[in-house]
This record gives sequence, C-alpha cells and structure tokens, in this order.
Amino acid sequence: MEEHRTEIASLGEFGLIDHLTRNNETMQAGTLLSVGDDAAVVDNFGRQTVISTDLLLEGVHFDLMYMPLKHLGYKAVAVNLSDICAMMATPTHITVSIGISNRFSVEALDEFYDGIYAACSQYNVDLIGGDTTTSHKGFVISITAIGEVAPGKFVTRDGAKPNDLLCVSGDLGAAYVGLQLLEREKKIFMETPQVQPDLENRSYIIGRILKPEPRADIVTWLQENDIMPTSMIDVSDGLSSEILHLCTRSHTGCVLYEDKIPIHAETREMAFEFNIDPTACALSGGEDYELLFTVKQEEYEKIAKNSNITVIGYMAETTEGSNIITRSGKKHALTAQGWNAFKE
Amino acid sequence: MEEHRTEIASLGEFGLIDHLTRNNETMQAGTLLSVGDDAAVVDNFGRQTVISTDLLLEGVHFDLMYMPLKHLGYKAVAVNLSDICAMMATPTHITVSIGISNRFSVEALDEFYDGIYAACSQYNVDLIGGDTTTSHKGFVISITAIGEVAPGKFVTRDGAKPNDLLCVSGDLGAAYVGLQLLEREKKIFMETPQVQPDLENRSYIIGRILKPEPRADIVTWLQENDIMPTSMIDVSDGLSSEILHLCTRSHTGCVLYEDKIPIHAETREMAFEFNIDPTACALSGGEDYELLFTVKQEEYEKIAKNSNITVIGYMAETTEGSNIITRSGKKHALTAQGWNAFKE
Repeated sequence: MEEHRTEIASLGEFGLIDHLTRNNETMQAGTLLSVGDDAAVVDNFGRQTVISTDLLLEGVHFDLMYMPLKHLGYKAVAVNLSDICAMMATPTHITVSIGISNRFSVEALDEFYDGIYAACSQYNVDLIGGDTTTSHKGFVISITAIGEVAPGKFVTRDGAKPNDLLCVSGDLGAAYVGLQLLEREKKIFMETPQVQPDLENRSYIIGRILKPEPRADIVTWLQENDIMPTSMIDVSDGLSSEILHLCTRSHTGCVLYEDKIPIHAETREMAFEFNIDPTACALSGGEDYELLFTVKQEEYEKIAKNSNITVIGYMAETTEGSNIITRSGKKHALTAQGWNAFKE
Repeated sequence: MEEHRTEIASLGEFGLIDHLTRNNETMQAGTLLSVGDDAAVVDNFGRQTVISTDLLLEGVHFDLMYMPLKHLGYKAVAVNLSDICAMMATPTHITVSIGISNRFSVEALDEFYDGIYAACSQYNVDLIGGDTTTSHKGFVISITAIGEVAPGKFVTRDGAKPNDLLCVSGDLGAAYVGLQLLEREKKIFMETPQVQPDLENRSYIIGRILKPEPRADIVTWLQENDIMPTSMIDVSDGLSSEILHLCTRSHTGCVLYEDKIPIHAETREMAFEFNIDPTACALSGGEDYELLFTVKQEEYEKIAKNSNITVIGYMAETTEGSNIITRSGKKHALTAQGWNAFKE
C-alpha cells in the first residue's frame, strides 16, 4: 500500500478533513448538519438520545503491528456501537477524533477511514463530526457514539430480579484466544522475520479479535419479538466481570452453569493448543462484544427460538451469592478474575 | 497540593471513576441516565441535538508547566461549549474521556475534575459519561459537548449575504499576548528558577488564555432579543481565519475596519511591550473564543444597544474580495495568516 505516499502536511488541517470526509454521505433522516461546521445537528423526532464514548491509545488498546489500519477503524467504531446496543438502543451517529504523527501518510489514514466508513455503512450510522490534531506520541482515537431509543425503552444494568434468566448472545472467549495467537505469531515474526504467520484455519478467532461486530441484530430481534430485558450490558471485559456488574447494580446474586457457556469449536481447539481452559477464556477473556442480559422467566419460550441466544443461568437472591456450577457439579464463587479463583 | 498523594492504582479503574464522579449531580431535566452504565440517555423534549468534539493532547494543546490542572479542566470544557454556542445552541451535556499515566496522583486528577465541574456548574451542563484509560505518553483529554436548540433555530457558517453586518462579541487578541507572556515567564523560570513570574497587572490577559468563557450569554441575548444571525462561528484560530471561513462558506466577500476591532487596553499595552501590532494579535492570535457572526442590516439598532457586541464591518459581493481597511484608510486583502500579508 506504500506505492504512493502523500504527506499529511501537504494537505493542511482543513484540507485533510475535507479529504477524509469527501465521500461522507449521511443516511439518517435526523442528520440535519454533519461535518464542516462548529458542531453537528441531529433531529430526534421525539426519541431519546443515547450517548457513549471511548478513548483508544496506541500501545495500550491496540498494536499497529498486527492490527491493520482498516480493521482498527472498523473496530474502533464497532466497540462504541456495542455500548449503544447494550442500552437496547439503535446507533445512529458517531464523531471521530484522531491524534496523528507525521509518520502516517494520507494513504495510511485513508485505510483507517475506510474501516470507519465500512462500519458506518454496515450499521447505518452517520459520521457527523470530529477533531483532527497532531500527536507527538502515538496514534490517539476518540469516538463518541450516539443512538436513539423510543421513550423509556432503554435497558440499564440495574433492573434484574432474582429468578430472571441470564442470557448471552453468540459465543465467548474467541477474541481472547485470537489475541493470544496474534501475539504468538508477532513474537515469532520478530525473532525470525522470514517465517510467515501461521493463521490457517483460524479465521473465526482472528476475525473475532480484529473485526468484532456489535449485536445490533439481537437488539432488533428483541424489539421485534416484544421482549424487554430487565438488565443488559455488553461483554467487553469477560463474562465473569460483566455478570458481576449486573449482580452488583441489580442487587442480586446469580447461578451460572459452566456447561451452558457458548464456546465456538475453533476457540476450544485453540485454547487446548495454548493449554488454557476454554471456560477461563470465556469468563475472563474479554473483547467478545456480545450482549449479556436478563429476561423474565416467562420469556423463555420466545428466547429459546433464537439460536443466537443462550440461557446460561439465572439471577438469585443476594444472600445466595454469585456462583458458577462447574461441569463436575461443584459450586464456586464467581470473581471478576474468573479463572484465578477457578484454578484454586 | 502534594501534601497527600494517592496512587491511581490504589483505586482501580472502576474505583477511580466512582471517585471522580462521586459528587456529580445532574441539573438538566433531560438527563435520564448519567455516568455508570454502557451509555447515557437524554430526553430532548422535541428539541434538536447539537454535537461537537475536541481532542486535546499534552505538549500539543497545553503545557502543564503553566497551565494549572484546574484551569485545564475548565478550559477543556469551555472550548467545547464554545462550539455549541457558535451554533446558537445551548450546551446541556458533556462526556469527558482521559488518558493518564501514573505520574498523576488521584489528588492531581481531582484538581482537573474540579475545573471540569466548575465549568459544568457555571454553564448548567451535565457530565454524563466518559472513558478513563492508561496513557503511556502524556495526558490525553477528549471532550464531546452536546447542546439543544429549538427546531431549525441553529445557525451555520454559510448563511451570510452581501451587506450583512459583521459582528464580534467581547474583545480580541488578549489570549495571544497572554500566552506570549506565560511563555516568556516560563523561559525565565527555566533559566533562573529563583525568579518569581512577573504577572502583575496582567490578570485580564492571563485570564483570557487560562480561563476562557464560551459566550453563552451572547446566544441568550440574541435569542431574547429575537435576533437570528445569518451565520456564526467562534473565534478559535484568529479573527482573519474565522472571517474567511464565513466568506468561503457563505460565498461572499467582506470589508473589515481595523479601527473597529475591539482590543482591550491591557492587550494593547502588552502587545507594545512585545513589540507586536495589537491588530495582528486580534487577526491571527486565536483562542479568544468570542462569537463572530453576521446579521441583517435592519438589526443594527438592536445590536448597537449591546456593549458586548461590536460591528466590525460588513459582508460584500465575492467579486469585491475579502479586505481590511486599515486605520490609514488603505485596503489590504485579508489572509488567514493576517499579519504576514499585513506587514508587506
């Protein structure tokens, strides 16, 4: 991709913004004013606005060595949209601010923005603003996502009741083993650059770490089927930590069944290759961006019809604590560092 | 302030967020859900939402050597609110994301947040979310400001017509000479640390660079007096550059009168001390955060009543170009780098 290198300085600040947003088309009817003024303006048509923001720093949240810029752009948007979905809301708009050094060419930034726009297009989200600045130290990305929800129809973390079913979308732990694989291949490459990375038959787990998808489809399905979860959160830090957030905020305990946790076959294989417990990957791995939520028991039949949702346990009284029942039938207290306690 | 130092690590990520937001009270009736969930939720009551965002990096946008953390927090919020005001909208909410290294203590962060909350309180704005992360390299601040406006009542940069009056709030150039003064005193301090900075009788210009105020008061006054500007922008990069933005976007030229540009007495004194032209400070200095706007000629009498607003010229046909008439009556083309051309 380095056939032609255009220096950022050759465009200037305003030229760069014009360049990066030249193909930016708005899709949302509510977008009254987009990039190019002091601020953007959005009409809400009587719906409520949902807002979330993330700051991503090179060397802390991503490694450009194995994260292609296009994927980085896509993922930076996806993880923000995931927070909007976790409120049972529909993402509609984003702002993207970047801090960049002149080691980046305009072509490199174009790759990054290709990823941003791909995610916007995938989820019908309008890019409506941002800030572009010089960074002396590393690539800085700040994204704010905005969504909408019908009045009062958002779902928080604090509404779960004892006996509510604990549900999760998709499968867990794949992003974690995907990251371990990328780290291993990076290490091998650093030591012997002539060796090509061995990522064959690992496309699922690699995809899960490099190109996560917010579960907007699950939100739509729940809305269409008239299922109102009692609490909801997205799985960014690992299943244990997220379940404990719901329990703490809802003042409940819980029972989680190890054998119900959905784990992809490729995740299991890779975990065994790395000699780690697949359950541990799901409990503590993080970056899965699935939705974890609770519903009333009477919703069971509806939920059971959706093969993308798994009931993994239920909420309990606080006095019963937050526990996992292992495959062997043993009960362990769930901790945020799932598998440390687990290995005892 | 370093009497007691609490390490950030001692609180942990969630503990730190709880600590920093422990006194966070919401004031806006529309704030349905604030800090602490996946996202915040805002009710708009049929009004339109205005959104702006800024990324501030240590060493690029601020220097902690002469920028006290409390002022930095205040200013970071103020400059974002200024963008909302520049749409003729009322700021209502902000999100604040920070990247911090462990060279910061919890007490230092408290200072920063004191400034954030002071600005929120001053402008009736709710802090509703954010992200707190580790930075290996410098302090990173990303703020998104949200505001509201009655349907269709926002003002963009592109509505000015020939013969509209060109107006500016407050006075210009003070922040620039304030910064020059701080830079000079920093240099003296670095060379001879025993010398105390000489900032006496310079409180106005120092205040303008360290604690700028968004002109929400001007927006309110214009609304109350039923004056709808035809275009508007805030003065962050210097008067010339902002006037040219309005001209370009509105497809007009302009005539600016040098003798009408409002400059504070202290700014003039300091400029003479530094041997720079006060007009040049106003034209190219930046960081004044005043509002620059155009109104129809028939609004003149109303505008003239407000001593915080000065008519500095008028918009012209594109064919007439964008010009400044100097005190001596000469006409010069206005350029974004105002005083370079000016000195020829």
